[in-house]
Amino acid sequence: MKKILINNTKNPRRLFSSKRASIDVHTHMYLPKYMEVLKSRVDVPYVRTINDENRLVILPGEDKETTTAIGRPIGKEYYDVNSKLAYMDKHGIDISCISLANPWLDFIEGDAAENIAQELNDELQGMCEESNGRLLGFATLPVKNHDACLRELERLKTLKHIKGVILGTPGAGHGLDHIGMRDILAKIEDMNYMIFLHPHYGVGVEHYHDTGHALFLALGFPFETTVCVSRMIVTGALDHVPNLKLLVAHAGAAMPSLIGRLDSCVAHDYAIASNLQHSPSDYLKRMYFDAIAYSGTNLKGLIDHVGSDRIMFGTDNPFFPPPDLAGDEDVSSAIWPSTEKVYHTINDIDDNVLVQKILRENAKQIFDL
Amino acid sequence: MKKILINNTKNPRRLFSSKRASIDVHTHMYLPKYMEVLKSRVDVPYVRTINDENRLVILPGEDKETTTAIGRPIGKEYYDVNSKLAYMDKHGIDISCISLANPWLDFIEGDAAENIAQELNDELQGMCEESNGRLLGFATLPVKNHDACLRELERLKTLKHIKGVILGTPGAGHGLDHIGMRDILAKIEDMNYMIFLHPHYGVGVEHYHDTGHALFLALGFPFETTVCVSRMIVTGALDHVPNLKLLVAHAGAAMPSLIGRLDSCVAHDYAIASNLQHSPSDYLKRMYFDAIAYSGTNLKGLIDHVGSDRIMFGTDNPFFPPPDLAGDEDVSSAIWPSTEKVYHTINDIDDNVLVQKILRENAKQIFDL
Repeated sequence: MKKILINNTKNPRRLFSSKRASIDVHTHMYLPKYMEVLKSRVDVPYVRTINDENRLVILPGEDKETTTAIGRPIGKEYYDVNSKLAYMDKHGIDISCISLANPWLDFIEGDAAENIAQELNDELQGMCEESNGRLLGFATLPVKNHDACLRELERLKTLKHIKGVILGTPGAGHGLDHIGMRDILAKIEDMNYMIFLHPHYGVGVEHYHDTGHALFLALGFPFETTVCVSRMIVTGALDHVPNLKLLVAHAGAAMPSLIGRLDSCVAHDYAIASNLQHSPSDYLKRMYFDAIAYSGTNLKGLIDHVGSDRIMFGTDNPFFPPPDLAGDEDVSSAIWPSTEKVYHTINDIDDNVLVQKILRENAKQIFDL
Repeated sequence: MKKILINNTKNPRRLFSSKRASIDVHTHMYLPKYMEVLKSRVDVPYVRTINDENRLVILPGEDKETTTAIGRPIGKEYYDVNSKLAYMDKHGIDISCISLANPWLDFIEGDAAENIAQELNDELQGMCEESNGRLLGFATLPVKNHDACLRELERLKTLKHIKGVILGTPGAGHGLDHIGMRDILAKIEDMNYMIFLHPHYGVGVEHYHDTGHALFLALGFPFETTVCVSRMIVTGALDHVPNLKLLVAHAGAAMPSLIGRLDSCVAHDYAIASNLQHSPSDYLKRMYFDAIAYSGTNLKGLIDHVGSDRIMFGTDNPFFPPPDLAGDEDVSSAIWPSTEKVYHTINDIDDNVLVQKILRENAKQIFDL
């Protein structure tokens, strides 16, 4: 198992009060093995030197764009654990549950995927072990290889810092609700693991081509998550795994706005309604959510929809870096407005017990820390 | 101008207290001329006798579906003004602002569209004139014919019961934000008309094929509206028509859930942000909304996002009819749970002044009644 040098965890700086000693459940890294894979590729996703700059190209069709520069510069905030820890210290984050960034191993078939997943998850476990309790992990599955997924899940039981798995919405390619995913979901449920459900492909992408990444990320991502969650509800997939713990990225995506409508549409569709054990909003109340709403109104609304026990602080780091960073400023030591915004929306809640639950207490309880 | 017989408006039954004398800004009809057009067609949209039943087939690809019966039965609640008035009486609706149901004239090109639009709008005006103040109208535009739109808008000035126009998200085919729509939007703004922005085509339709209409309507519709509104914001289209009144169907669709994220994504995209006069949430605060959220939490959230002056009661009648209607019961004299749900979410607001604003006072003010 590879070890990754961590140099500043003994005396982490705490710039913020204990009120901000938060646990971040939505934070990504490109682990060393993943960087190696991405650098070896010619198709999206890949990492390549373009105009003397290492650039990460991950989004579907992103290499064909003409309206913006291709991809984004990939600095050490994407792959260096010390950069992650510096960011955590700067922003009062006590513990981060690291997940590989999208698109994970969605593009790798066969045995290769299993070997890479093992290496990635061992790297993640090793990094967490070295972190003096600062890091936990969501593992990566070789999703295109059904039996390998089951084997890797079994193997993950030996990796003590792994608290769940991150999965994209397609699963093996036909959606998480597809029957081919059923025994994988059942095994995850049985292990009491969390699935961190995260978008990558976007929905409605034909409408975003001339707006840079703004609408792809602002709409396409949450639409994709919303479709996946809704399909898992209305197809009855969740009835097969009633205790599955599903962490829905980006504060439930568009589910909060549309849950009343989904309830109504299902109630007006006998074929769907008669096949379900509960109304959609009841399934939603069983799920888990990060607090990345960037809106105090919506965070409060989410609490109103699902209660206060299932929402946990998150940052989406290293995405949405400071937009106004001076050229020579180090992104790892800067204050990130996107992270600050999450704190502000949480701290705006007029109930300190609730604030503490979302910042850290819920995660402690849910992940048994 | 055709007259349409109305037989029960002299002494409308008022089953509900004055508290429920509401004004419905989201209610549809298939006007006689439109039924004639639909019956003459072989491609979607059409009305056709299938298994001895008149059925309406309007949604894209709906005629190719295999999982549900094709389309839906089209009874008099879709086209008969007396049925509409009976429904209004039953549900304490004082005034309805009638709009043609989707997909309007999106599928008709050239001169034919202009003639049909004139006939439809004259029918609508005639129906409203006969209604003793019970009915107002949103007119239909021949959207595929640019100059005809401008001419019809000019002509609409003589139709006193018309309060705006209903438009689908594609406009003439390339989106409402397309430069080809700019002088049409400017003329609508100049006339102080409302645009009732309504979905029809869905976004993400490739994901809904095996779930009947439930996900198409619950997700595809609001996604489509959300894309249109977001594109009008981020492309700067709204900066050209700062006083345009845009009524966003279905309680703002997914905009409320995603507005914080859209603000953040735009703020992190210099090319987009530097091109806009305001943040996305500021544009949202200028828009108008129906109250069809089917969720008290979301209705309160919408008020929190945009204030209480721009939200108006709506029903979406005659869609979402009572799902449990006995075979011999008349849908026009039944209580509609979908309508009741809208009332309940409004009446749940713990402020009677606010309740009255949403039920009727806002509409009175906005439409100068």
